[in-house]
This record gives sequence, C-alpha cells and structure tokens, in this order.
Amino acid sequence: MTITITAFERSPDGGKGLARDTRVRWALEEVGQPYEVRLISFGAMKEPAHLALHPFGQIPTYEEGDLGLFETGAIVFHIAQRHAGLLPDDANARARAITWMFAALSTVEPPILELGTARLIEGDKPWSAERMPLVEDRVRNRLGQLSHRLGDADWLDGPFSAGDLMMVSVLLRLKLSGILDEYPNLAAYVASGESRPAYKRAFAAQLAINTGQPPTG
Amino acid sequence: MTITITAFERSPDGGKGLARDTRVRWALEEVGQPYEVRLISFGAMKEPAHLALHPFGQIPTYEEGDLGLFETGAIVFHIAQRHAGLLPDDANARARAITWMFAALSTVEPPILELGTARLIEGDKPWSAERMPLVEDRVRNRLGQLSHRLGDADWLDGPFSAGDLMMVSVLLRLKLSGILDEYPNLAAYVASGESRPAYKRAFAAQLAINTGQPPTG
Repeated sequence: MTITITAFERSPDGGKGLARDTRVRWALEEVGQPYEVRLISFGAMKEPAHLALHPFGQIPTYEEGDLGLFETGAIVFHIAQRHAGLLPDDANARARAITWMFAALSTVEPPILELGTARLIEGDKPWSAERMPLVEDRVRNRLGQLSHRLGDADWLDGPFSAGDLMMVSVLLRLKLSGILDEYPNLAAYVASGESRPAYKRAFAAQLAINTGQPPTG
Repeated sequence: MTITITAFERSPDGGKGLARDTRVRWALEEVGQPYEVRLISFGAMKEPAHLALHPFGQIPTYEEGDLGLFETGAIVFHIAQRHAGLLPDDANARARAITWMFAALSTVEPPILELGTARLIEGDKPWSAERMPLVEDRVRNRLGQLSHRLGDADWLDGPFSAGDLMMVSVLLRLKLSGILDEYPNLAAYVASGESRPAYKRAFAAQLAINTGQPPTG
C-alpha cells in the first residue's frame, strides 16, 4: 500500500528541515519505505478536508490504505513498529527506546518551542529582553541533564533508534541559537544524526520542495 | 513481577491529583495491575540514585524486574501494550489511540504547561498581566480544535483508551482556571474520565499519601 504524507507547500523555515515532515521522511528513509508527499498550503491546512485528517490543522499526516494518522511522534512510532530498523527486538530495550521518543517530545522539546515562541512571536514585546534569559535557562536546564546522561556514548541507549531520531530532530531546532554548542557532546550527537544517509535523503527531499529544485545525488 | 512506581513524598499540588504519578496509577487501575509506590523527596530526586533511573530528575518512574522506565507517556504506553483494557485490538484503531496519547502530550499539554508557568513562576513579573491573555489564547486555540473534533462523542475515537486517559489527565490541569468550562463538551469529557472507578481509586491513593490518611471506600 502506498504511504502518503503531507508537508508544507512552503515551509516557514524556507527548507532548513525544521518542519515536522522531515522527522517522518527520516523515519521512512531509515526503514527503506518509499512514500509520496501531498503538499498543503497554510489556507488548506485549516479547511475541513485537512481537519478531518488532522484535528489541529498541522502537518505532517500519514495515510496508508484505510489508516489515517496525525501527530509526528505517533507516525514515527507507527513506522518504527511496522518496519525493522528503528526499534530493538529485545522487549526491554524496545520499551527504553520508546521512552526516549516520549522524552524528546514531552520533556526536551517544550522549553525549546517556548524559546522559539519567545523569539519569533514575542520578540517585539516590551518584556522580551528581560524575559529571554529565563526562557533560555529552562532550555539549558534540560540540555544539561540530557548531556549528563548521554556522556560520551554515540546514542542514548545502545544502537541508533527512533528515540535518537526524535531527540536529534528536537535538538536541531537549537542549531542556530548557539545554545547547543554549550554542550559539545550534544552538538556532536546532533551532527552524528545529520550525517546518517537516511537523514541526508530526508533533508534533501524537503529542501527540494522549498527551493523548487529536484534533489541531487 | 512486582511493579514499583515513584511518586512525590509531598506533591506540590497537595493532593489535587495533578502530579504525573496519578496518570500511571490510573493506567494500572484500568488494567487491574497491583503496584507498589516508592516515595521520593525533592532532594532525592536530584541525587545520582534517582537520576540513574530518571535522567531529568522527575517522577514517576516504573520498575518491573530488570526494566526501568521514566517518562509518563512511555510508562502508560508500556502498561497499555502489556495488559488488555487500554488499547483496541484492531491494528488501525490501536494506532489511532496511540496518536491521541502523543497529541495529548505533544500538542495539547505544552500550552497548558506554559499557562502554569506564566501563573506560578512568572506571576510576579512586571510583564505578567499584559502577557497572560496571549498565553491563555494559545490554550484556547488548542481547546477549540479539540472541542470541535470531540463533538458530542463520549471519547475521542471509539471506546475509552489510553489516548483518552492521557487527554483527560492533561485537561485536568485546567480545571481550576475556568478555561475548561468555556468548552462544555470538554468539561463533560473530563468529568466522564474522573467518574471512572479506576480514576477514583488512583486519585484516592495519591490523596492518601498527601494527606497522610489511608484511602477510604
């Protein structure tokens, strides 16, 4: 059955790979599943046809035969559970890898998204300069704990897993802020993720849409 | 094998059931699994012994034989996957229920937590009064979408599932704010969750710890 995902017709980041379809593309590339992409405009995202698939009017979505899913974490988990390559076979190791998926989305990403909101949406507010250090420190608090746990390991718990895919994707949002570089092991961890051939293919595919050019080699 | 979870020795909410161990207790009650509780002080949460189990120094954790998990979503998912009662058997319905778990934690809870931060941690800041409406409107945006999707259904997608358990738990954080009452179908949905016998047992168990009294009836 054909897998079809949705992505922004034009991503707000202009192709930096931060839109969430990149995470789903990466997962599909890791497990070697081909997929099709349906591009959606900002207007169409809020229309009934898309809201029937995604109640919060966002991308990505995932369609395969009768199944329609939304929510990036759920889609990546679904892919990881159906195809080999993103979750360990051992039951306990598998439960721990899933734990890191939830940790990335529920514990590490929220303060990072708050930082984005503080900069992009509240950056022109009178409180912005005074409030920003508070918001940054909440991000540092999480990164410090994550850095401590990662230590000098390559990945969070044994071989690369869907947990790493999600954590690297979340940390990538910080790349331009400079904060990530305060934690050299996390910066190296993110670079390791970016260097995976599957990530490179996913990144190139979303970039091609946003620049209007087909991906090259 | 005995299941052991961790909970606050003294919850910051004094027993209102908003600490995340309530979600895990509720899941265990729904599937009829007995469990033990190890209480942890705020100081001990940041010590190496607990950090080895929970890298972000929080509660709850979950231990069963050799397996140690953290992150509420992952723990509830693990319970739901191992025991009947919280996820449908049909594969597609199961994937959709898991989607609602992720949606509760990744899409609905973050603005609700931001509202809590704005009130509790930044409530005395000079920008608090002017900024609060922005933060509240982000919560309303999500609740409006969720209310539209729920419509007049009892639960989000067919019978009660782990997705509903998580969504109700997330929405319960808003109960005292008055915002939930602006969406009568969501308020009724939360009330339905609270009226489940398994929720009542979970709530009573955490309350007993916080009041120092054994649960009654």
